[in-house]
Amino acid sequence: MNLIKPRTPPGVMELLPPEQLGFQRMLGIIQNTYAHYGFLPVETPVFELVDILLTKSGGETEKQVYFVEKTGDIQNRQNDPAKYAGKLPGEALRFDLTVPLARFVAEHEHELAFPFRRYQIQRVYRGERPQRGRQNEFYQCDIDVIGKDTLSPAYDAELPAIICEIFEQLAFGDFTINFSNRKVLLGLLDAHGILPDRQVLALRELDKLDKIGADKVHASLTNELIALDDKLTGTLLHLASLRGSYDAILAEIAKLPQSEQLAQGYKELQIVCEALTALGVPEKRARLNLGIVRGLDYYTGTVYETTIDAHPEFGSICSGGRYENLAGFYTKSRLPGVGLSIGASRLFDQLRATDWAGATAPHTTQILITLLDDSLFADYLRLAAELRRAGIAAELMLEGGKIAKQMKYADRAGIRHVLLMGSEEKARGTATIKNMADGTQKELNLASLAIDLKAMLGA
Amino acid sequence: MNLIKPRTPPGVMELLPPEQLGFQRMLGIIQNTYAHYGFLPVETPVFELVDILLTKSGGETEKQVYFVEKTGDIQNRQNDPAKYAGKLPGEALRFDLTVPLARFVAEHEHELAFPFRRYQIQRVYRGERPQRGRQNEFYQCDIDVIGKDTLSPAYDAELPAIICEIFEQLAFGDFTINFSNRKVLLGLLDAHGILPDRQVLALRELDKLDKIGADKVHASLTNELIALDDKLTGTLLHLASLRGSYDAILAEIAKLPQSEQLAQGYKELQIVCEALTALGVPEKRARLNLGIVRGLDYYTGTVYETTIDAHPEFGSICSGGRYENLAGFYTKSRLPGVGLSIGASRLFDQLRATDWAGATAPHTTQILITLLDDSLFADYLRLAAELRRAGIAAELMLEGGKIAKQMKYADRAGIRHVLLMGSEEKARGTATIKNMADGTQKELNLASLAIDLKAMLGA
Repeated sequence: MNLIKPRTPPGVMELLPPEQLGFQRMLGIIQNTYAHYGFLPVETPVFELVDILLTKSGGETEKQVYFVEKTGDIQNRQNDPAKYAGKLPGEALRFDLTVPLARFVAEHEHELAFPFRRYQIQRVYRGERPQRGRQNEFYQCDIDVIGKDTLSPAYDAELPAIICEIFEQLAFGDFTINFSNRKVLLGLLDAHGILPDRQVLALRELDKLDKIGADKVHASLTNELIALDDKLTGTLLHLASLRGSYDAILAEIAKLPQSEQLAQGYKELQIVCEALTALGVPEKRARLNLGIVRGLDYYTGTVYETTIDAHPEFGSICSGGRYENLAGFYTKSRLPGVGLSIGASRLFDQLRATDWAGATAPHTTQILITLLDDSLFADYLRLAAELRRAGIAAELMLEGGKIAKQMKYADRAGIRHVLLMGSEEKARGTATIKNMADGTQKELNLASLAIDLKAMLGA
Repeated sequence: MNLIKPRTPPGVMELLPPEQLGFQRMLGIIQNTYAHYGFLPVETPVFELVDILLTKSGGETEKQVYFVEKTGDIQNRQNDPAKYAGKLPGEALRFDLTVPLARFVAEHEHELAFPFRRYQIQRVYRGERPQRGRQNEFYQCDIDVIGKDTLSPAYDAELPAIICEIFEQLAFGDFTINFSNRKVLLGLLDAHGILPDRQVLALRELDKLDKIGADKVHASLTNELIALDDKLTGTLLHLASLRGSYDAILAEIAKLPQSEQLAQGYKELQIVCEALTALGVPEKRARLNLGIVRGLDYYTGTVYETTIDAHPEFGSICSGGRYENLAGFYTKSRLPGVGLSIGASRLFDQLRATDWAGATAPHTTQILITLLDDSLFADYLRLAAELRRAGIAAELMLEGGKIAKQMKYADRAGIRHVLLMGSEEKARGTATIKNMADGTQKELNLASLAIDLKAMLGA
């Protein structure tokens, strides 16, 4: 028989156990912290109906979905191509967790309590050409608060407080959650009589500041299309590059020519800053940065982007913002919300290329009980059961064979302690514990094995 | 704008938060127990390459896959149907976790330590017509041990010990893990000169014993196709209905006319029974039942089926067995293994229709801090931060509005304690904790709030 080469499709991340353990630890920290702040879990099916998913909201992602089709439907299509010409399959894989959230909240509106606080940690699918940092399948870890009719801007402060705690625990070094409020710059443009179309174009150009620099942004803001004057352009670039305390930056905003929208943005930012301080989030972690505008027009108020200080090349590792109405395609209810999303697969993939200690995690097995003497087979099983009952993660070697091979297994698998008990030790009522890292051995009494071993393992 | 009716595709399970919390608790118990017994996590991509997935191994599931295709590829297909006639898309969703395991182990053979102990908890996809108990998308929780060249039958005892512990924790009532070894009955047929083709047919008929009864099985075993004589048929039916201690049933097997295969099966069963006893698994939980044969020829030795005593109508909730060679399509190495799989979505779906307490789990939020007085906004945030740091899952109500509405939110969301602090209480240095279940209130000192609250919540 010809062998088929075992391989995965391109554009996916698959990990070996030590890294999978590291990745699970990361997802666990994210999930536990979300729950600790009073958020509830939601999981949705991997595919959605196509009319739900593709609402022509104009996002780029809608052009890159994966459609799914059952064997039978494919056969029908092939048997009668004319009949199916131009017809798309009825279901497709989700490309983000926002559309499923909108559908879920609209569908279950009368069964949920608002403000609805949900987190969702699942994979999403994008049919792009895969490249480093752009996978076809990846985890997103979303957290959103959805209000009914209204939602206080104070929620916009709680989300970065949660993200801050998560990233501190992940311990990949200093990071900065940058936030702003789109209403400030849009309101400033308003105050200068710039029409909404050009406002949006101007913000998109400003978004490129970090990438292409102030000169190029200045050139495009003053070109024929956007046509801002030099002074206004200068003000925008000045605001976008402002760094300093919340108070200092808020004072700069207060000096600007006011419009209704700007005043609203100012007020919202004030609340967010006050709440961040009360929540104990350091200003160096959550930084008011008016240069953050986000490309998506979907966001209407607060916007966030997060960078790792030592790795600006990662881009934003956690982004999001405030939106006016979550589910307008599915319900007449007004559902304003605010959300943040950690691109966990991409972040893990980037971090494991650095010296980050979290890229792997130790084997969950605390001790391997070796099969030193076949005649003691049942004793080893009883020992394992005893240790497991005492809360020690114990693994049994049941394959037997040379003890050197069993030790090599423990070593390769990354198990740090092994238990050895021969007939002499059994007669003495003891077992030997060997530390695989430093080779030291210790003889423990069987009568108090679980207790002594726990102390030894620091469990 | 016309609204799109928010809904999921048929054949999927989507849960509201209280049930999602119950389901996550179930998956958590499964995962933690797998890890506690020394198994390592693997996650694979949701789609596999079609040549990997559809190896023509002859399973029914291969006829019911979901193919996936990117937008661009669908367009190409539609633009030039002739070119794509008869061509299947290149990727499809996994229909089980066994094929991905085989591919994974073959692909990473030289990076893994054997025996390789892995668990995998992910969703799988079957393009069947959905009906109660048959979903298109569902979780499987697989656990397997893969050996290189050999694998001791003792591992066949460790897996049911793990499942037993999981099901005890899930507390859905009495259950029975039935196990047998296919070699016993096949070996008996061998000893009577029945050829392998007819052996397989005979076992398939015997598998229907519970469903159609002894008379009908007797009729089909003695019909023209299988043509066993009355005496052998009687022996098979006798063995399949034997109930009793391991020793009693092993003694019955020892009395049978021996063949090499039967002797092998007997020896393996003996090891499994001895190991189960040493591991402390009660005989009423892991029952030697020669009537278990499994339909799949894939299994070559030990086979398992698990039933809930009070709900035989659920069918087998956890099945599996021993296989000779995991990854023959992908590698020349011989990789024998043994595995068990819990169909978690189906089991949860069935159990929640009963009075099982695990169908929902309480809200993870331990206390809701209400926004009783807008002027104390910052105080509430500081309190929340303090309680969270102390390990209490605290939720903030930041929307404000009437306190009755806030209490109603806590009630609907299922939060059992709320904190109320007005300006008078603040002046006194206290906060009131209200128990939503019984309406009782208690005033606690702010100075020791976290400690006193923890004691009160029993955390």
